[in-house]
Amino acid sequence: MDAGVTPTMAAVPTPLGPSTVPTALHAPFDLGAWSHAQLARVEDALSRWVCSDAPAGLGEAMRYAVLDGGKRLRPLLVLAASEAVGGLDEAALRAACSVELIHAYSLVHDDMPCMDNDVLRRGKPTVHVRFGEARALLAGDALQALAFGLLTPEGPQVPPAMQATLCRMLAQAAGADGMAGGQAIDLASVGRALSEAELRQMHRLKTGALLQGSVVMGAACGQAAPAALAALSQYGAALGLAFQVVDDILDVTADSATLGKTAGKDAASDKPTYVSLLGLERAQAHAGELRIEAHAALAASGLPDTRALAALADMVVNRSH
Amino acid sequence: MDAGVTPTMAAVPTPLGPSTVPTALHAPFDLGAWSHAQLARVEDALSRWVCSDAPAGLGEAMRYAVLDGGKRLRPLLVLAASEAVGGLDEAALRAACSVELIHAYSLVHDDMPCMDNDVLRRGKPTVHVRFGEARALLAGDALQALAFGLLTPEGPQVPPAMQATLCRMLAQAAGADGMAGGQAIDLASVGRALSEAELRQMHRLKTGALLQGSVVMGAACGQAAPAALAALSQYGAALGLAFQVVDDILDVTADSATLGKTAGKDAASDKPTYVSLLGLERAQAHAGELRIEAHAALAASGLPDTRALAALADMVVNRSH
Repeated sequence: MDAGVTPTMAAVPTPLGPSTVPTALHAPFDLGAWSHAQLARVEDALSRWVCSDAPAGLGEAMRYAVLDGGKRLRPLLVLAASEAVGGLDEAALRAACSVELIHAYSLVHDDMPCMDNDVLRRGKPTVHVRFGEARALLAGDALQALAFGLLTPEGPQVPPAMQATLCRMLAQAAGADGMAGGQAIDLASVGRALSEAELRQMHRLKTGALLQGSVVMGAACGQAAPAALAALSQYGAALGLAFQVVDDILDVTADSATLGKTAGKDAASDKPTYVSLLGLERAQAHAGELRIEAHAALAASGLPDTRALAALADMVVNRSH
Repeated sequence: MDAGVTPTMAAVPTPLGPSTVPTALHAPFDLGAWSHAQLARVEDALSRWVCSDAPAGLGEAMRYAVLDGGKRLRPLLVLAASEAVGGLDEAALRAACSVELIHAYSLVHDDMPCMDNDVLRRGKPTVHVRFGEARALLAGDALQALAFGLLTPEGPQVPPAMQATLCRMLAQAAGADGMAGGQAIDLASVGRALSEAELRQMHRLKTGALLQGSVVMGAACGQAAPAALAALSQYGAALGLAFQVVDDILDVTADSATLGKTAGKDAASDKPTYVSLLGLERAQAHAGELRIEAHAALAASGLPDTRALAALADMVVNRSH
């Protein structure tokens, strides 16, 4: 199926309204079936790679943090981006699991008493409630190391240069200029008034960096042209921001049972959100605009089939939890 | 200066008593001058690479955790091993800093109230005392990511295959099968009787993995023969264990001012140590045996000049803090 995007169109990445998005991007695509197949691979791989045999209960805590839960949005973004560029399967599966491990470790540490002090995650007791704080801290640390370990297998299955690139991207997305930096801004922002620019910067790092990183890591599993990579990166940035805007909306509109975590928490702790800044209606409109921006970037990528990525952007904006 | 080790000797790595260690290994080598020059490079590089511009005070906490303190034993091991194999300078400097960042992050997390609850480190307030627990947690997390970031620079200065190998080794040394796993055993062991084998396994992971990892990462910056790499790895294992045995000895023989951290802590918290297991005298004898084992491995490596590594092993065993 041809997306009908010519290289000439791709070379001019102008913002496109919804009516100008090439129609093939809206051609029937069964995200449910696609995700189901991909998630089976991801869950199987995570279960193999996050071993229970780490010493003194550490492996058990790591598996508890990673398995049987989560939407796996980041792995799906890696796999969809890799598919879009014809990427290497083994590399993409490893990258998909590595970003999920980083995400999982960040949740473990984020939930700890010295951070958000949350006791419920995905409807289960958080890791430190179940295994104690010290083991939760170590499990998070070990998951981060394992993420880089997954990206660097011995043997010929993933070319060394690709391994190095993936590690570079993951370190960037996870570190002080990415997720960890965003969390530091978040910490410092409680009870302070932020401008929209400051809020955007916080979320660009805290949530956006790893979501965007997932897309560019998927793209790095193949041999896409620089223009296509730039467009996918732009898609990832828009999707990352949309994810956070919708998260802020759901924090006030959904209940804890639907979310699988404590609802209304941000408002209660006086954290700045898109809803507190823009109001509910404008926040919802902003999420819609970001969805369109994500679609436009895909159209501009010149890649023949980006339907999975397009469907994931829709899912992020339309989700109810 | 020729070490007088012939390839034939190197191919037969038999355990050597002190009298059979080739004499050139004991030829004059000024460890002080060598370390001084190497440390100047390491401190300068760490100060450049651990930036203060990470957001919301995170960079400040990271620099506090890393700069102006520490013996830098791990970086020196990387640089000495790299020198022994004629390794690539830029790769070795990056690897040296990366292992120090892993070490620094582990200390930050280890000192936190939910772990060792220590308030003094290198004579200064610990990171969580100075910056708060949440920021200490994030600073540790960001330092681990940065360690992998340092190993994967863009551009031609470090070959991609070497980058990938170094990341693999670091992930192995830091993760559940290395340092983090050892810490989990340590946690679980408080108040329990351990056999010497169990104690050895705990320290092989907790302290030994990163020390040995430093040696093999340094060796991976060059093109040594597999037999030489195996010998250096053996050297690293002996040195790593010796380091811990001496640590346990110093915990009972030195005072807090000399150590720069709380002395007598392990005994007070009922942690098993080599001294509690073997007694002081046998622990001291064991440290001496491990030193000889380290020297024998260097002799068996067949490498022409391993004097810096030999001197570091002596320093580890003879140190007073």
